[in-house]
Amino acid sequence: MDEPDRTLPDGYEDQLGHGALTFADRPLLTGTADLDRWQPDVAIVGAPLDINTTNKPGARFGPRALRAEADHPGAYHLDLRIEVFDHLEVVDYGDAMCPHGQSEVGLANIRQRVLEVASRGIVPVVIGGDHSITWPSVEAVAEAHGWGSIGVVHFDAHADTADRIDGNAASHGTPMRRLIESGAVLGRNFVQVGLRGYWPPAHVFDWMQEQGMRWHLMQEVWERGAPAVMADAVAEAMEGCDALYLSVDIDVLDPGFAPGTGTPEPGGMAPADLLRAVRKLALETNLVGMDIVEVSPPYDHAQQTVNNAHRVVMEFLAGLAVRRRDG
Amino acid sequence: MDEPDRTLPDGYEDQLGHGALTFADRPLLTGTADLDRWQPDVAIVGAPLDINTTNKPGARFGPRALRAEADHPGAYHLDLRIEVFDHLEVVDYGDAMCPHGQSEVGLANIRQRVLEVASRGIVPVVIGGDHSITWPSVEAVAEAHGWGSIGVVHFDAHADTADRIDGNAASHGTPMRRLIESGAVLGRNFVQVGLRGYWPPAHVFDWMQEQGMRWHLMQEVWERGAPAVMADAVAEAMEGCDALYLSVDIDVLDPGFAPGTGTPEPGGMAPADLLRAVRKLALETNLVGMDIVEVSPPYDHAQQTVNNAHRVVMEFLAGLAVRRRDG
Amino acid sequence: MDEPDRTLPDGYEDQLGHGALTFADRPLLTGTADLDRWQPDVAIVGAPLDINTTNKPGARFGPRALRAEADHPGAYHLDLRIEVFDHLEVVDYGDAMCPHGQSEVGLANIRQRVLEVASRGIVPVVIGGDHSITWPSVEAVAEAHGWGSIGVVHFDAHADTADRIDGNAASHGTPMRRLIESGAVLGRNFVQVGLRGYWPPAHVFDWMQEQGMRWHLMQEVWERGAPAVMADAVAEAMEGCDALYLSVDIDVLDPGFAPGTGTPEPGGMAPADLLRAVRKLALETNLVGMDIVEVSPPYDHAQQTVNNAHRVVMEFLAGLAVRRRDG
Amino acid sequence: MDEPDRTLPDGYEDQLGHGALTFADRPLLTGTADLDRWQPDVAIVGAPLDINTTNKPGARFGPRALRAEADHPGAYHLDLRIEVFDHLEVVDYGDAMCPHGQSEVGLANIRQRVLEVASRGIVPVVIGGDHSITWPSVEAVAEAHGWGSIGVVHFDAHADTADRIDGNAASHGTPMRRLIESGAVLGRNFVQVGLRGYWPPAHVFDWMQEQGMRWHLMQEVWERGAPAVMADAVAEAMEGCDALYLSVDIDVLDPGFAPGTGTPEPGGMAPADLLRAVRKLALETNLVGMDIVEVSPPYDHAQQTVNNAHRVVMEFLAGLAVRRRDG
Amino acid sequence: MDEPDRTLPDGYEDQLGHGALTFADRPLLTGTADLDRWQPDVAIVGAPLDINTTNKPGARFGPRALRAEADHPGAYHLDLRIEVFDHLEVVDYGDAMCPHGQSEVGLANIRQRVLEVASRGIVPVVIGGDHSITWPSVEAVAEAHGWGSIGVVHFDAHADTADRIDGNAASHGTPMRRLIESGAVLGRNFVQVGLRGYWPPAHVFDWMQEQGMRWHLMQEVWERGAPAVMADAVAEAMEGCDALYLSVDIDVLDPGFAPGTGTPEPGGMAPADLLRAVRKLALETNLVGMDIVEVSPPYDHAQQTVNNAHRVVMEFLAGLAVRRRDG
Amino acid sequence: MDEPDRTLPDGYEDQLGHGALTFADRPLLTGTADLDRWQPDVAIVGAPLDINTTNKPGARFGPRALRAEADHPGAYHLDLRIEVFDHLEVVDYGDAMCPHGQSEVGLANIRQRVLEVASRGIVPVVIGGDHSITWPSVEAVAEAHGWGSIGVVHFDAHADTADRIDGNAASHGTPMRRLIESGAVLGRNFVQVGLRGYWPPAHVFDWMQEQGMRWHLMQEVWERGAPAVMADAVAEAMEGCDALYLSVDIDVLDPGFAPGTGTPEPGGMAPADLLRAVRKLALETNLVGMDIVEVSPPYDHAQQTVNNAHRVVMEFLAGLAVRRRDG
Ligand SMILES: [Mn+2]
Ligand SMILES: [Mn+2]
Ligand SMILES: [Mn+2]
Ligand SMILES: [Mn+2]
Ligand SMILES: [Mn+2]
Ligand SMILES: [Mn+2]
Ligand SMILES: [Mn+2]
Ligand SMILES: [Mn+2]
Ligand SMILES: [Mn+2]
Ligand SMILES: [Mn+2]
Ligand SMILES: [Mn+2]
Ligand SMILES: [Mn+2]
Repeated sequence: MDEPDRTLPDGYEDQLGHGALTFADRPLLTGTADLDRWQPDVAIVGAPLDINTTNKPGARFGPRALRAEADHPGAYHLDLRIEVFDHLEVVDYGDAMCPHGQSEVGLANIRQRVLEVASRGIVPVVIGGDHSITWPSVEAVAEAHGWGSIGVVHFDAHADTADRIDGNAASHGTPMRRLIESGAVLGRNFVQVGLRGYWPPAHVFDWMQEQGMRWHLMQEVWERGAPAVMADAVAEAMEGCDALYLSVDIDVLDPGFAPGTGTPEPGGMAPADLLRAVRKLALETNLVGMDIVEVSPPYDHAQQTVNNAHRVVMEFLAGLAVRRRDG
Repeated sequence: MDEPDRTLPDGYEDQLGHGALTFADRPLLTGTADLDRWQPDVAIVGAPLDINTTNKPGARFGPRALRAEADHPGAYHLDLRIEVFDHLEVVDYGDAMCPHGQSEVGLANIRQRVLEVASRGIVPVVIGGDHSITWPSVEAVAEAHGWGSIGVVHFDAHADTADRIDGNAASHGTPMRRLIESGAVLGRNFVQVGLRGYWPPAHVFDWMQEQGMRWHLMQEVWERGAPAVMADAVAEAMEGCDALYLSVDIDVLDPGFAPGTGTPEPGGMAPADLLRAVRKLALETNLVGMDIVEVSPPYDHAQQTVNNAHRVVMEFLAGLAVRRRDG
Repeated sequence: MDEPDRTLPDGYEDQLGHGALTFADRPLLTGTADLDRWQPDVAIVGAPLDINTTNKPGARFGPRALRAEADHPGAYHLDLRIEVFDHLEVVDYGDAMCPHGQSEVGLANIRQRVLEVASRGIVPVVIGGDHSITWPSVEAVAEAHGWGSIGVVHFDAHADTADRIDGNAASHGTPMRRLIESGAVLGRNFVQVGLRGYWPPAHVFDWMQEQGMRWHLMQEVWERGAPAVMADAVAEAMEGCDALYLSVDIDVLDPGFAPGTGTPEPGGMAPADLLRAVRKLALETNLVGMDIVEVSPPYDHAQQTVNNAHRVVMEFLAGLAVRRRDG
Repeated sequence: MDEPDRTLPDGYEDQLGHGALTFADRPLLTGTADLDRWQPDVAIVGAPLDINTTNKPGARFGPRALRAEADHPGAYHLDLRIEVFDHLEVVDYGDAMCPHGQSEVGLANIRQRVLEVASRGIVPVVIGGDHSITWPSVEAVAEAHGWGSIGVVHFDAHADTADRIDGNAASHGTPMRRLIESGAVLGRNFVQVGLRGYWPPAHVFDWMQEQGMRWHLMQEVWERGAPAVMADAVAEAMEGCDALYLSVDIDVLDPGFAPGTGTPEPGGMAPADLLRAVRKLALETNLVGMDIVEVSPPYDHAQQTVNNAHRVVMEFLAGLAVRRRDG
Repeated sequence: MDEPDRTLPDGYEDQLGHGALTFADRPLLTGTADLDRWQPDVAIVGAPLDINTTNKPGARFGPRALRAEADHPGAYHLDLRIEVFDHLEVVDYGDAMCPHGQSEVGLANIRQRVLEVASRGIVPVVIGGDHSITWPSVEAVAEAHGWGSIGVVHFDAHADTADRIDGNAASHGTPMRRLIESGAVLGRNFVQVGLRGYWPPAHVFDWMQEQGMRWHLMQEVWERGAPAVMADAVAEAMEGCDALYLSVDIDVLDPGFAPGTGTPEPGGMAPADLLRAVRKLALETNLVGMDIVEVSPPYDHAQQTVNNAHRVVMEFLAGLAVRRRDG
Repeated sequence: MDEPDRTLPDGYEDQLGHGALTFADRPLLTGTADLDRWQPDVAIVGAPLDINTTNKPGARFGPRALRAEADHPGAYHLDLRIEVFDHLEVVDYGDAMCPHGQSEVGLANIRQRVLEVASRGIVPVVIGGDHSITWPSVEAVAEAHGWGSIGVVHFDAHADTADRIDGNAASHGTPMRRLIESGAVLGRNFVQVGLRGYWPPAHVFDWMQEQGMRWHLMQEVWERGAPAVMADAVAEAMEGCDALYLSVDIDVLDPGFAPGTGTPEPGGMAPADLLRAVRKLALETNLVGMDIVEVSPPYDHAQQTVNNAHRVVMEFLAGLAVRRRDG
């Protein structure tokens, strides 16, 4: 393989975070040739689709807010003591096109753009958008890594395993069902954390159990603490598959911390716990893709939600950086 | 025809505006038998669909906000000196079902519910939702009153006459094209007021001219004043058709007055002018239906936009009441 | 007793959550005859009175917001594994009339409407309003169940046991004193949880001790954890009375979770703890009424506070449903 | 009369606008002896009472917001070319005490504090609070200047001349009736500007006409322009009385400019017109008192409403300053 | 001169408005070599400096908000009937670096970056930042076009001609004084529109008159209307100089339309008037540079202010486009 | 020493919290002679400087918001059972003047005003402002108590020990470095709690270690709990110095609780923990000064952040009161 060529236009670097508003001030690449030339470890992909949300919309502006509005903290991870971008080459690969009012076109474009990344051995970090975007995103990663060979760890207040909602098979409440039905992910390799509240109904949990899915209710986190639950979740996720995809619905956090989301459910996780849960996964497992979804900026305040989403991605990147550094 | 039966459940009337949150505190009817029994003059229909919006979503919550959040002012119109509901029987006929992520189902249900109203000789007032809901709403009214026989007066910052946007034929930027293509409304019976800004492009205006459509740019309102423009618009609208449908996109107002909308465009009308324009139409023409669209509560503040939308409907109702009273 | 008659008008059921904005999308009943016909287990009563608040007003809009703005989550309780409304018949009984600026009239009307419910053996769930509404609400329940025979469990940052504040005997800071003075509730049957901050002054606590009241400061929750404190509180509450009333001032939560309240006090409970505290009470004790107060929507953001209040009621209902199911 | 003594504590002047948050950074006086010593021309009196509002509360925080949150612009009036405070001695005389939940006590205290000012020949500027505070404020001024001898010019979307609302005789919708009933102001000396919308009902206007009251609907302002209407209003107000009281309900402005108010009504005045209307009155008539009411900070944004209220007072002060300077 | 080379990286064009968040979705150029290669007509320059504001800060986020948050309307100017970017080549040239807390460094960098643009015959459009950025921006343009040879048309509520404020010679209230003192602009070539309120004091206006400056108070706009005033202003501005710089402080608009600014002053212009004033200047005079300043996103709501600022620039660009097209 | 003279002007006491908006409704003193006369234990000093913030500004309004907007809770500390102001004489000593755009002048004035307090043996409580104000504040206290003789306990998400940021030596990210460089505080007497996120970089931590500084990452708080960490921190802080200064950056709290701050970092402390940490310090150590910084009201909501800051000061005062009472 050729050496990567990572030259930037004159003056461009100074504009990152100023005239160039990109995720974490990383360079923007726009075409596959760029990916081939640059050879990044990780590529951010925006998936600004929110028409499959059942309640409050706005997640279409998630990618824009994470690029332009998140409060940037630097990149030296205080707990892991690593300069993240010294050890991990991350680029912003722009958005998949999600034309308004047309779910299928958007989902197909997301799948295509994530595949452009994953098929090159680059780790995609997909920024939603509502949770329906996980369907094409995981399928693209599964296509690159082996259909049925990857596991999923899924943080969410909701299981998102309904069959159809209001007749919609691509709802943000159904993607996990689609992934298991298609065989992209095996039920036994699917682990959920943070479920709570009043949905889905019992028969959906029955179906989940039939698939061998495993889940950890927020009740369990409340009783045992996040570290104990995460120890189990990591162990479960690594049984029978050697690569994982991480899907984080920001509504797994309590709405006190993350008001900017479409289907908030009181009684959720604290950011300190979620960030360390993601960190643990990134340090201890082989993550080959992730998404962060359901950030709805119109309902956010002072970037509370946007910043949590940004730091979730940073923990993911920091963990990957440690693994790259330490081989 | 039988006498109307307008009895309410015991205690219900006291709950209007309290436990019963309906448009203008009018009784909620829910089925066609109710309509037949009650025989109202006007029925409110909610159309909570916003997936065809190109920019900021949220108009799905327009009906809910107009029912539950608008600041109610009483019902004696100070300028027209009429107790509106003494002379016009208005009911709230609930929502058309608009399942998430599925434009076609929602649009069909809107058409059906508006038709239930209009086919009974009841005037529908449709509360959007984004502007795509005008397509089924006008078609239902045209079906009831005669295909191609009604005119439309359309207040908007945007012409909404594109062919397709991003491939979407049911976009909130295309309904007026659909109505003319289908023959539901003849181009010459279509009058627009308030257009401004940077959209649509020139070729769309060419098409509009070919159809015989007429429009009054905001520039003309700025130069001549709203009363002069409205005098022309009313005259134009009444040429060649004896019944009109009124479609008001709340973004015709300047965003200073109506921030809660999806595609705000600076430089718009003032509420004092818009309210009197609607009043003039309601007093001087034969309005057989109306809609108020693009109210997006997540972007509203202190009910500024919701209240303007509410008062637009009240002017419509007040004008109808005067006409009923005065025969 | 006759069989209940729970028929709804044609099309009404479809409109729940759409044209009909009621608590938890339950049917709206408006008169006592309706209650007798329907024979519900629980009836919601709005108490939109906020003129007895010492600081930020707005709680008058609590009932409206809980009906129209709360994000609805479904009704299958994930931890208790029960479809709540399959086992518990809940209706919305509208508002007690609270005419502006007149505390006494509103309080009397609240008492009357709660009594209409409680005297029929229906459990009232009262939605405030400020905390002054607990005075008439508990008295009505006590009147129905036996004066001095019920206990109260009271979650709040504040004891609300002052004699008068600024000369106001019906202040939101005085209802608990009124209840004990009138004998509606005996001091020893009154248990408070979550008190913190800088109010009331020492002599009020002296009076409370003289009455045999018991309280658990937030300091104790911080030291021992909510489960340990709740175990004690439940035991205390059940000493000497076989029926309990639950009063939840939403300001018992930390303002980070519940900003929309009139007298916020930093350092409060987390929603995960409060919800389980209410659940425990509902599962383990005989609750015959409850209120949720001090939700001030003008100070809320993205329904953070409204949703917490809504879920507090849902926990109450879920616990009752389990008890009904399990006999 | 003795010379005024206007010495301030050491360092106090530097703290105006900093540690000392007063209206327009004027010195705070707190007792009648202070008034006698200082001998100001004008004294600001806060009237933080809002329990008589029918709709959105919050005006209790009007005085606080006008002191602490208004954006201060300097004091050289560009159009009138006068340094306002060089020619007019203005002090902040603090608040009348308005204990919560007790309308009568608050209204009596307002009357008392305004009387302390007006009886000394000092012009009171009263900052509400809801419009019910005008009842005691005008009565105090009438008591000082001669019962029935002063006129009132009243800017408002609402006539506020109902008899009772919901049984409340001291409602914010009734003060003008009380003033005429008591004879404090004669009906023919009462002029209203800006009325619009749907309230009060016809019979109230009949009563107003019987009293000889005069009003200018917003419709007239829209047709003739504010300057023409104000010319008439000034002429009318000066017929038959040589001293005027000005009452400005901020909701006379369109809610686009003044969202922070309790009963917003679309279609109101623009600030540029209102400010000049007040200016004209202050320059051309003998104003002996004023109030600015219905500023509700919880519904304000970026001080939009607070600043308009502040500038209304500044115009009043500037006009008085010109009259003092020019004798 | 060589032909311009305007090739973009593969896929970049699709990302404009998506992964690439630039002003009006124009390409981002970052170095002078890029400018030389591309040869644009106009270059946007961000000037994110706000430490010279006397009141509310936040204008540092003006460039970011105009790039990432403005609602984009398309580019066909409805009144002028021109596709703006078909006739005018516009690029985004990123930000001048404005390190925090250091006014002088930021101002120097702004001057340098504007000079890079203007010295190449490219028209700079500078996005503030507070109004202090006009000092270096105009000086750079004057340096390119001839010291003392350009005029300035300045829309603002404030004259910004103080000598020093609080000892600060580079305050946002002093730039116009600096420009005249340095001779960059002659007093007689300086025309101001929209001044109102209570600042600056009389002696500053005396100084302005001595310099031959001309200004049009908002009072004059109120009396004569914006078109009449603009006719005079354009005539005045073109006396004695053949090139103009346009400086627009967004606070010239009424705060009802533009709440997001640091020193709001009620009673300002309407957007419809301001946009046409800018249009007239752009069509009828030789504009060689412009800035738009004092947009403070933390105080904005629903992009009200940001969109007005964006459209002000669009009018400027549209006028230039017409002049280029028509030669 | 003379007896203190604590007489207030007539009527002034009634106006505290009403016409007089001061910290915790304490009397405002404005000059050193006042301090000498009154002889308070503690004096509040506002330090409204925010131009050294790297990200979101607004902290200049911290003092104003803490005086005028905080929700006042009374003064009887429920956990400590003490009426704070019965045992501790606290006054508001107004603001240090911080003229806009001029860091050095503001910092010098802060130092001067704090010295006026501390040099009299009065404990200063300084309300920022951004964290750069800690530099002059601690130096003034050190000057009064002995250069190098006091320790600092510092709660923050950030170490604030950079050398320069963007060339700024007085940045809000550098004050702790300045204090150690100048010898005002010895490195070994500097203890930090709550650090997290991605800043400062490794070499800054190396420098901190060289100075003997000690810090407790948020990671440690997460693992061990706040009480255990605070036990260590108190022990460390009291090694080798007998007087401490407490500096609290409100961003040590999680942004869910404190959104109104300039550089929010997810994953922070809960208010319940922070308040008890401050309480422990105030009870167990000899605190001779404190500051609370980085409260940025434009980004706050419903006083969430302001109230936390207010209660942090109250805990400090309560602890001091206990120590005074108990000798
Ligand atoms: Mn999900
Ligand atoms: Mn979810
Ligand atoms: Mn439209
Ligand atoms: Mn439109
Ligand atoms: Mn309470
Ligand atoms: Mn409470
Ligand atoms: Mn009024
Ligand atoms: Mn009014
Ligand atoms: Mn300016
Ligand atoms: Mn200005
Ligand atoms: Mn800090
Ligand atoms: Mn910090």
